[in-house]
Amino acid sequence: MSASRGRPIRLGLLGLGTVGLAAYDLLRRNQDEITRRSGHALQVVAVARRDTQAARRCVDDSVQVLADGHALVTHAEVDVVVELMGGIDPAKQWVLAAIDAGKHVVTANKALLALHGNEIFARARERGVVVAFEAAVAGGIPIIKTLREGLSANRIQWVAGIINGTTNFILTQMRQKGLDFSSALAQAQALGYAEADPTFDIEGVDAAHKIALVSAMAFGVRVQFDRVHVEGITQLQAADMRYAEQLGYRIKLLGITKRVDNGVELRVHPTLLPQRSLLASVEDAMNAVMVCGDAVGSTLYYGKGAGGDPTASAVVADVLDVARLMDADAVHHAPALAFQPSAVDDGPVLPQDEVVTSYYLRLRVRDEAGVLAQLTAILAQRHISLDAVIQREAQGDEATPHTDLIVLTHAAREGVMNQAIAAMQALDVVVQPVVRLRREVFA
Amino acid sequence: MSASRGRPIRLGLLGLGTVGLAAYDLLRRNQDEITRRSGHALQVVAVARRDTQAARRCVDDSVQVLADGHALVTHAEVDVVVELMGGIDPAKQWVLAAIDAGKHVVTANKALLALHGNEIFARARERGVVVAFEAAVAGGIPIIKTLREGLSANRIQWVAGIINGTTNFILTQMRQKGLDFSSALAQAQALGYAEADPTFDIEGVDAAHKIALVSAMAFGVRVQFDRVHVEGITQLQAADMRYAEQLGYRIKLLGITKRVDNGVELRVHPTLLPQRSLLASVEDAMNAVMVCGDAVGSTLYYGKGAGGDPTASAVVADVLDVARLMDADAVHHAPALAFQPSAVDDGPVLPQDEVVTSYYLRLRVRDEAGVLAQLTAILAQRHISLDAVIQREAQGDEATPHTDLIVLTHAAREGVMNQAIAAMQALDVVVQPVVRLRREVFA
Repeated sequence: MSASRGRPIRLGLLGLGTVGLAAYDLLRRNQDEITRRSGHALQVVAVARRDTQAARRCVDDSVQVLADGHALVTHAEVDVVVELMGGIDPAKQWVLAAIDAGKHVVTANKALLALHGNEIFARARERGVVVAFEAAVAGGIPIIKTLREGLSANRIQWVAGIINGTTNFILTQMRQKGLDFSSALAQAQALGYAEADPTFDIEGVDAAHKIALVSAMAFGVRVQFDRVHVEGITQLQAADMRYAEQLGYRIKLLGITKRVDNGVELRVHPTLLPQRSLLASVEDAMNAVMVCGDAVGSTLYYGKGAGGDPTASAVVADVLDVARLMDADAVHHAPALAFQPSAVDDGPVLPQDEVVTSYYLRLRVRDEAGVLAQLTAILAQRHISLDAVIQREAQGDEATPHTDLIVLTHAAREGVMNQAIAAMQALDVVVQPVVRLRREVFA
Repeated sequence: MSASRGRPIRLGLLGLGTVGLAAYDLLRRNQDEITRRSGHALQVVAVARRDTQAARRCVDDSVQVLADGHALVTHAEVDVVVELMGGIDPAKQWVLAAIDAGKHVVTANKALLALHGNEIFARARERGVVVAFEAAVAGGIPIIKTLREGLSANRIQWVAGIINGTTNFILTQMRQKGLDFSSALAQAQALGYAEADPTFDIEGVDAAHKIALVSAMAFGVRVQFDRVHVEGITQLQAADMRYAEQLGYRIKLLGITKRVDNGVELRVHPTLLPQRSLLASVEDAMNAVMVCGDAVGSTLYYGKGAGGDPTASAVVADVLDVARLMDADAVHHAPALAFQPSAVDDGPVLPQDEVVTSYYLRLRVRDEAGVLAQLTAILAQRHISLDAVIQREAQGDEATPHTDLIVLTHAAREGVMNQAIAAMQALDVVVQPVVRLRREVFA
């Protein structure tokens, strides 16, 4: 196949772990197909990995193996640096050095961009190079390109997504097998769906990294990771999975960002979704992102959100984009964060107290007359109206029988809801901490 | 908001019907947001519509209104021609004239591109202009960009989609309300989901237009509309919707294109899908496309496939892509059909007889001993194995009681299956034409 019409694009791979190796293999395996599409041959000329002997065993003899990332990013023969090492240090300094050396950068590093994206993108603009990051959100699903280009005619209204596969796998196990969180986590670790230290996943930090990037691209605001309201899934109990199910809902960890009158909502938390909704049917380690625009309406993008091959799919697609535009002036590239830098808003992120949503409450109460009246009075005083109430049979010893009271509310401001919960908690009849989850219906 | 850094992009709208007006309104409504993204102001300088008085009432005084499309596409002040008139004549001659005049073209015209795309794209390449057509497939869902850029690292294996909203609406009505085809069509027409002449939709021609384009982009083959095997939904009966449901399936009209050993499958037909699959849960007039690539695995894209606003979303996104690249050399554009023209295969489309899939058969048979044995012998002789058989209670007058026999088969070559069906049909005990539907399970 001699479809090549441009000069070869020379790549340097920074990091050669699971994703790095998958990208290397994908570039080789689909070499012909990629050249048929791009007109360029993509050539890995150098890789950097601390363990050079291990690296040597993985790549062709023609590929230079370096121990020093800095040497790779400043390598005279590298056109595009592909950063797949992860973490902040030394990834940040090497990415900046690559930019300073005039290299285009493709990265899958969501933590780096969530924390230092504003600085990195600004440096890339100054230097006239591209920093592409499709692989940083939702693996192989081209959601970054969709937000930046596919839906660029829209005023985006909200984005909501299942953007962490580990937690979605755990939640699926909890629901399907009635497991509690820690058993489901242990299973996910045994099956390789969760890392030995799963903190970033289960505490919602990874999803927060991603939704901060998505929010910037959706609304033209800065990357504001430090403003994300983050709740993970570690507090979720099997009982709530069950009750949600009985009420027609399913609990998912969502990253949510919405444009509202007075700013932007930016949050990650477990969320009840109607069982019949598309997002609710996204199971196991799959990812899905819904985007609602004023013209296009609600759209959904679904696929594998992690793993070597899907991530490599996004990385190599980014390389192809860069390759296509490499000889053009940087002015012809879509802006990294979708909006012109001069047009970026300092759109305020709403304090979580001001977010309006509806709620699921579970109260463990004494099984005695008048309890429901006390609770509903607290809600009524604050103009929070009820959507549904269910009461479960009493349990516990007979002297002090307890019961579960589950309440679904209509929309309320979170600050007001928190006051209501505090008032409920103060009642003698409420014998355990009130469980509160949020509920969303994405139309 | 003064984010504009490029010169205004001047647009000429060819056609000012539902989509034309929606695009015009969208460009005005989201002017600020679009400029924030693109750095360019997009300006409609002229529109062409036969009824110039009606057009005059729809647009600003500053917009020139022309009766003659040719005058618009050769207009000195127009940079990009947006063709939203539909049909082949005179759309084809005006699009070619626009290209010859050095204008970039954005079009939503799938019929035009399915029939004459090879010629039009070749002319555009010669002239160094872009013909963009995101709106031609699945409305606002950016599936063209996804196939061309987002998944460009993959060897695409198959694409399957619900890409005609009218038929999906009709099928949803048939299933939910137990309607037969003609009643459901009448309802769809009353509600505005089907046109007065719905032939192109219900006969599968519209879906065939779209899958021919998709196939070219997925595999790097020519646009081969004339090779699509097309079956619409007009022959579907309420009984089969019901039986499929009982067997755990749902019937959808799919456009399917697959890469197989000896060529490419290219077909549109009603298809049984497992009820729990994501595609099966796409209801009403919604569209969804699944794409499976060797690296990314199975992905799905979902949204509104028709209507003014969703289509305008895709049209204006295309204009933004063109605007971004307008000052660059055409070499920097992604190829219109995703692959370099020199790399396009003459990949053969498989004769439908050679397609391998599994089948749903419904046979109306005499309710007498030995019928099932006769039928299964016919299948067994041809090495077609059975997945499930159900038999429904006898109906009709008592002298000649009849019964419905429903058979799900495992995979078989269609030519062989057709022989088997002919043999079954020839049996005395089979009293009506055998109903045959295809079944797919997209993993």
